[in-house]
Amino acid sequence: MTSSNQRAVVLLSGGLDSTTAVAWGRRNGFELFALTINYNQRHKNELNAAKRVAEFFQIEKHVFLDVDLSVFGGSSLTSATMEVRRHVPLEEIGQTIPNTYVPARNTIFLSLALAYAETLDSPHIILGINAADYSGYPDCRPEYLAAFKNLAQLATKAGVEGTTQIQIHAPLLMLGKKEIIELGQSLGADFSLTHTCYSPTADGKSCGVCESCLLRLNGFKEAGLVDPIEYARSRL
Amino acid sequence: MTSSNQRAVVLLSGGLDSTTAVAWGRRNGFELFALTINYNQRHKNELNAAKRVAEFFQIEKHVFLDVDLSVFGGSSLTSATMEVRRHVPLEEIGQTIPNTYVPARNTIFLSLALAYAETLDSPHIILGINAADYSGYPDCRPEYLAAFKNLAQLATKAGVEGTTQIQIHAPLLMLGKKEIIELGQSLGADFSLTHTCYSPTADGKSCGVCESCLLRLNGFKEAGLVDPIEYARSRL
Repeated sequence: MTSSNQRAVVLLSGGLDSTTAVAWGRRNGFELFALTINYNQRHKNELNAAKRVAEFFQIEKHVFLDVDLSVFGGSSLTSATMEVRRHVPLEEIGQTIPNTYVPARNTIFLSLALAYAETLDSPHIILGINAADYSGYPDCRPEYLAAFKNLAQLATKAGVEGTTQIQIHAPLLMLGKKEIIELGQSLGADFSLTHTCYSPTADGKSCGVCESCLLRLNGFKEAGLVDPIEYARSRL
Repeated sequence: MTSSNQRAVVLLSGGLDSTTAVAWGRRNGFELFALTINYNQRHKNELNAAKRVAEFFQIEKHVFLDVDLSVFGGSSLTSATMEVRRHVPLEEIGQTIPNTYVPARNTIFLSLALAYAETLDSPHIILGINAADYSGYPDCRPEYLAAFKNLAQLATKAGVEGTTQIQIHAPLLMLGKKEIIELGQSLGADFSLTHTCYSPTADGKSCGVCESCLLRLNGFKEAGLVDPIEYARSRL
């Protein structure tokens, strides 16, 4: 456990998926170093959720990093003027790439995780990326992840020197939201600490009608569980 | 020239290589969008050089982005306590990975350039990466670049929708410092605007003895040219 080979960098946004990924890492005996990126997203509640989750799981170290992706524009998640889609029928989610897509977000996040891992002499990166509910984002697919692993091996000192095989752990990769919730529950994740909503109310409640809320609420419904967080309203 | 297909994001650090890459992009008719990343490097003079170079080439837009890589530690370039190597014999440079290596730096920079390019609907990224003088950095090799191109294609909306072939232009890839200087000169780059030194003096002069200065000075010497910037001292 004290060897750097047991260290893992985990990307923690404070949502359901990354929280379940942290729980998975904890259960698998990793020494966890969480990385939370503030990319000037609208939903800053996520950052507080990440802090709560890291404390709950007694993470070894939690690094926050500001990367203001709004300088590029192009996504409703970081733009002050673009509107987040609401009330989208569930069956339409994932059919097209929504305007909540942040260009190259996972590539940026994984690159930063790779930098942190390399600094820690750790070959492990854990993230809550998942393909089943990927909501149309291109950088949430298995082939994308394989390409990043290949890149990481070529990009790093340890990879070049042949001392390390970089490992990208995506334990949720093939799971739907229902299965993620069930897995998180079984691993002891406290979902009341998490935040998912793209456009929460001023008093911190989730809207219940953005794509992200809809997927979350539907996941809890399918799992036969009650979502422990507060909603302003819900149509499910 | 006004089509988004002629737009290119160019990574501009303000050094010799990225300045030559900008000159190459200008000569090849691209509409240039420069991205300069402040990663809390010791040599902030680079940022001022980037600004001068962008103005000189009348870049369409110049975006500065703060990404404080010092939160991870691990490199003398971003650490306040690690020492930059000086007086290294020229023949030893490039034999090992030096402590000026910033973990995953090019992967992070390329990811951010990719995000910017995607926002601009541009398939082009230009960077001054070069293999010949790569000074032992793993993420300056041709195979690394090929892996990033593959990743970029899988990571982006345009790549997934098959509308665009992402292109990573690295015109200096196989050039040594001498050839880069000759190329930049022939393309009209003004090297007096650039900054290279890892540890400049308080009054902005280059030290002349860090690895970066040594490679630069040797390049000018081999090209039979006089380096137009000011040095505190020089042993070449």
